[in-house]
Amino acid sequence: MIRGFERAEYETRTARAQVLMDRAGLGALLLTTEADVRYFTGFLTRFWESPSRPWFLVVPREGPPVAVIPSIGAALMGRTWVEDIRTWSAPNPDDDGVSLLAATLREVGGPVGVPMGYETHLRMPLHDFERVKDLAGLAFTKDAGLVARLRAVKSPSEIAKIETACSIAGRTFARVPEIAGEGRPLAQVFRDFQRLLLEEGADWVPYLAGGAAQGGYADMISPAPETPLCAGDVLMLDTGAVWDGYFCDFDRNFAVGHVGEGVAEAQGRLVAATAAAMEMARPGARASDLWRVMSGIVGAGETAGRLGHGLGMQLTEGLSLTPQDQTVLEPGMVITLEPGIDRPGGLCMVHEEVIFITEGRPKALSPLAGGDIAVI
Amino acid sequence: MIRGFERAEYETRTARAQVLMDRAGLGALLLTTEADVRYFTGFLTRFWESPSRPWFLVVPREGPPVAVIPSIGAALMGRTWVEDIRTWSAPNPDDDGVSLLAATLREVGGPVGVPMGYETHLRMPLHDFERVKDLAGLAFTKDAGLVARLRAVKSPSEIAKIETACSIAGRTFARVPEIAGEGRPLAQVFRDFQRLLLEEGADWVPYLAGGAAQGGYADMISPAPETPLCAGDVLMLDTGAVWDGYFCDFDRNFAVGHVGEGVAEAQGRLVAATAAAMEMARPGARASDLWRVMSGIVGAGETAGRLGHGLGMQLTEGLSLTPQDQTVLEPGMVITLEPGIDRPGGLCMVHEEVIFITEGRPKALSPLAGGDIAVI
Repeated sequence: MIRGFERAEYETRTARAQVLMDRAGLGALLLTTEADVRYFTGFLTRFWESPSRPWFLVVPREGPPVAVIPSIGAALMGRTWVEDIRTWSAPNPDDDGVSLLAATLREVGGPVGVPMGYETHLRMPLHDFERVKDLAGLAFTKDAGLVARLRAVKSPSEIAKIETACSIAGRTFARVPEIAGEGRPLAQVFRDFQRLLLEEGADWVPYLAGGAAQGGYADMISPAPETPLCAGDVLMLDTGAVWDGYFCDFDRNFAVGHVGEGVAEAQGRLVAATAAAMEMARPGARASDLWRVMSGIVGAGETAGRLGHGLGMQLTEGLSLTPQDQTVLEPGMVITLEPGIDRPGGLCMVHEEVIFITEGRPKALSPLAGGDIAVI
Repeated sequence: MIRGFERAEYETRTARAQVLMDRAGLGALLLTTEADVRYFTGFLTRFWESPSRPWFLVVPREGPPVAVIPSIGAALMGRTWVEDIRTWSAPNPDDDGVSLLAATLREVGGPVGVPMGYETHLRMPLHDFERVKDLAGLAFTKDAGLVARLRAVKSPSEIAKIETACSIAGRTFARVPEIAGEGRPLAQVFRDFQRLLLEEGADWVPYLAGGAAQGGYADMISPAPETPLCAGDVLMLDTGAVWDGYFCDFDRNFAVGHVGEGVAEAQGRLVAATAAAMEMARPGARASDLWRVMSGIVGAGETAGRLGHGLGMQLTEGLSLTPQDQTVLEPGMVITLEPGIDRPGGLCMVHEEVIFITEGRPKALSPLAGGDIAVI
C-alpha cells in the first residue's frame, strides 16, 4: 500500500472547492480543523492532540492553499504540495497567529467562508476569531457546506486507504479468540484488542468501544470495566483504527462460551438488515431510505439516533442514516451500516459494516460478517 | 490504583468554579469540550472521537451541573454525580440540541461564561452557537479563564493518575531495547512502542511522536517513515499515553549502535537543564523563569516555541514555558520540562520530564533520566 497521495489529488480537491466557492460567491475558505486542513494539504500529524496551538489553512479563489501555522509545523508542511507557508512562534498568548492570519486573508480577499454548519467546529479560540474578523475587515460567512460535500465523495486512493484500515481490523477480529473468553476482564480485552490492531498494521487506534453482558450490552460508549466475561455474555468490539490517516469503523459480536437465548436470532436480523440496506445502497437512494429498510427489520431504536454514517478521515463524517437525512447517495461515498436491536432487560445488540457506493451494487470494505455469531 | 474520583472531588471543583463565577459576575458556565465536561462530571468516553454530536454542560451559579447531551450518552452520564440530565436524539441537523440548550440556559440565567481565550475552542457548530445565543436571550461573555485556572492546579487524586500514566510509560521506555535497534524501521518501532504501552497498562495511546537521524532528528511531529534505524542515529520517542483519562507526556533518547559525535554532551546539557529548572520550580517562580534557566543552558531555540507546558486531562494544557508566560507556579500544578538543543545539520535533540509543584522541592512524576544516553 502506498502512503500519501499524488500531487494531482490535492490539485483536484482544491480545484473542485474553487468551483463551489465561485458558485457560493466566496473569495476564500478558512479551515482550522485537522481533517479539513489535511484534506487540502496532506498535512498528517498526531500533534493536533495538543490543543495549545491553532493551525490555519486559507484556500483562495485561485491557486494553491496558503498555510498559516506554528513554526513547529513548518518542516512537515514543507514536504506537502503547499508552497506558501507562513509561520509564527507559537504559543504566543498575545498574538497566536491572529495578525498573520488577518493579513493573509486581507491579501487573499473575501468573503471568507468558514465551515460553521452541522458537525463542524472552529478549532481556534472564539475570542481570537473575533479579532481576526475585526483585523481582516472582510465579510465572514458559512462555507455553504462545500467542504463537507467534497469530503463525502472519496477518490479511489482514499477508498484504498479505508479498505486497508478495514483489512487490518478484519484480521484483528479474526484473532479475538486469542484474547477474549470466559473469565477474561473486559478492560484487558480492550487493551489486548488495541495491541492486536497495532500488530496487524494499524498506525494508531484513536477509537475503541464495546460492551459485554448476558444476551446483549447496556451501553456502547463507556470505558471497559474490570468485570470478567461470563458464559452467555455477548461481547461486542467496535473499532476505530487508522491507516495513513483514514479510519475503519465496524464492529463484531461474539458469544462467550455459548450462544444465549435469542442472541442468534438477533444477530441474524442485524445481518439481514445490513444486507437489505446494501441492496438499496445505490446512487439516487437517500440516507433516510437506508434507515427505513433497516429499521423495518430491527425496529427503530431511539437511543443511538442513527443506523450508520459517513466515514473517512474522521470516525464519523457526513451523512447520517436517520429518518430526517435526505442526502442522496453518490458513487464514491463511504458509509457504515449500523443497525441496532433492542434486547430484554434494557440491553441491545448492534452490528456494523463499511461499504462504498458504486454505479451499481455497493462494495463492502469490511469483510462482511455471516449470520452466525462466533462463539469464543 | 483506583479509577474515577469520589463525589466530593466534583463537588469541590464545582464549588470552586462557583466562587470564581461569582467574582466574574457569571450566572452560568457553558462547557462544550471533552476535558471541560469531564472535569466537572467524570463523564469519560472515547466517543468524542466522533465529531457528529455536540455535548453541553451548564454549571449554574449554585448547585450541581446540568448535562444537555445526546441520548446515546444518557446511561454513562447517569453513572456520574450529575442528576439533571437532559437529552435529545442526536444527530438532528434541524435542531441538534439548540433549543434544549437555550431553554436550559434561560432557566439557569446569565450572563453565560464561555471559555473563549487562549488554547480553548468551542466544540459545537458556530452557526448553532449563534442560534443558542439568540434563543436564550442572555448575555454571553468570556469565562475569564476560570476553568483553565481551576484545571491547572491538580488534586492529589489527579496527580496519582498522572503518576500512574507516567509509570506505565517509564516501564515501556525500559523495554525499548526489545523493539528498536539497527535495521529496524522507525514506523515499526512506533507501532511496537504503542503495543508495549498497552501491555504495560495504558488504557489507550492518543499521542506518540518521535524521530531518528544521525546525531539528532529533524522534526518531532511527522509520522514515522519506513526508514530503518542506522548505527549512529539518535532515536527519540515521546508519549502521550492515558490512564483513567489522565496523560503522561515525556520522552527518551536512545543511541543506536554507538553514541554519535556530540550526542553525549547534548544529552548531558539537556538533563542539566531539566535539573536546573527543577531547582527553580517552587511556588512563586514564574513560567518565564523556568524558560530562562533552561534556555541559558541549552540556548533558546525558536522552533518549538516553548520548553515545557502544563499537563493533565489533555496532553498539553495551561501554562507554557516561554519568555512571555508570567504564570506564577502554585502547589499542585503539573508541568513538563522540555528543553531542546540545536544539533549540526539543522537537527535537534529534546528531553522531557514531568514534575509537580509542591510547597518545597518539586516531585518528579516521570522516572528522571540520567545524564548518559542509553545505547540500543
